Amino acid sequence: MKIITLNETVTASNERDADALRARMAQEGKLLVNVMSSPGSGKTTLLSRIIRDLPDVKIGVMEADIESDVDAQRIEALGARSIQVHTSGMCHMDAGMTTAAFDAMEASEARLFFLENVGNLICPAEYDTGAGKNLMLLSVPEGDDKPLKYPLMFQKSDALVITKTDALPWFDFDLEKCRERVLKLNPNIQIFPVSAKTGEGMDALEGWLRACLV
Amino acid sequence: MKIITLNETVTASNERDADALRARMAQEGKLLVNVMSSPGSGKTTLLSRIIRDLPDVKIGVMEADIESDVDAQRIEALGARSIQVHTSGMCHMDAGMTTAAFDAMEASEARLFFLENVGNLICPAEYDTGAGKNLMLLSVPEGDDKPLKYPLMFQKSDALVITKTDALPWFDFDLEKCRERVLKLNPNIQIFPVSAKTGEGMDALEGWLRACLV
Repeated sequence: MKIITLNETVTASNERDADALRARMAQEGKLLVNVMSSPGSGKTTLLSRIIRDLPDVKIGVMEADIESDVDAQRIEALGARSIQVHTSGMCHMDAGMTTAAFDAMEASEARLFFLENVGNLICPAEYDTGAGKNLMLLSVPEGDDKPLKYPLMFQKSDALVITKTDALPWFDFDLEKCRERVLKLNPNIQIFPVSAKTGEGMDALEGWLRACLV
Repeated sequence: MKIITLNETVTASNERDADALRARMAQEGKLLVNVMSSPGSGKTTLLSRIIRDLPDVKIGVMEADIESDVDAQRIEALGARSIQVHTSGMCHMDAGMTTAAFDAMEASEARLFFLENVGNLICPAEYDTGAGKNLMLLSVPEGDDKPLKYPLMFQKSDALVITKTDALPWFDFDLEKCRERVLKLNPNIQIFPVSAKTGEGMDALEGWLRACLV
């Protein structure tokens, strides 16, 4: 497993870099999914479950963090291609960093790629990484009021995965109220309540991923 | 309850602004505690509990968020002075914003002030707000690996409150391992495992706050 350290990309336009990466992935028949959430919402656990559940899909994972390589180690242990990106203290990935990480991973055989963005519900929503799909997680213990406080992330995401639903009995989280708040911000978002621990709801999410791959 | 919208302060030195606010608070016999954590770690729930537990201490709370006023409403309902600060999309508070919020709150009778910073484990650690003490929360559902990934926040904090300890039976969180990782980053940090729901551990935290007030 590689570890690379990247700095903010200085180019004329992050949008142009993002469009270029998107066009390149589409041409190669690959899909990049940008995975965003608060710290500790269960991004790595969700990706680990998807890798185990989809043995027929070759998957590559870029793990972005300020420090440590614990996430990339977990992914690599499952046999998926992975690379750990250190962001030099930065709170998000931009399109240039994502392109550099993708190239450094050297995973030409994979078709489905995940960028596990830095754990942060604010800054990553402000930067187009060049991903084909944006997927965000909100975990049950975080609370159903998060759409009210961090609207941009919910507006920018194609799919919302509500994680740790096995913890619903112990937390004051109203699934219906959350759904309503999210759809008010983004009527086209796909919502998948899941427990990566029990597997509940994973089928629907994985079906959506397969559909996006075609 | 007031709502004010603030932009990033443009002055020569955030450090100078921070030192000025700290000196002013000390002179007036007041303490400002900067409360930082991921979204959904339980900052407002913890502050609500402290307000209820310390009826003899006059408390003022500045609630910083990108949008919404749900947190300030919760605090105001408990009878404490509060103000909602909207950060114009910014992921943190700086010292100038904190000073402006403090002045706008008009809570001269209060002695203990909390700034509930924007929910973010990265950016708020990079800005001195002028608070006398920095307090961070890490909730049990977030996981014990967070010190490895977000070291700066743990290094900058005077106290770490490990919240939602009532959820320890349901999550894979090793309190001892977490404590070890945190003390390695910051040997002087005070660590308080608490459940604001059951009240477990609140005494020690509230004792520390009282000691800081003297």
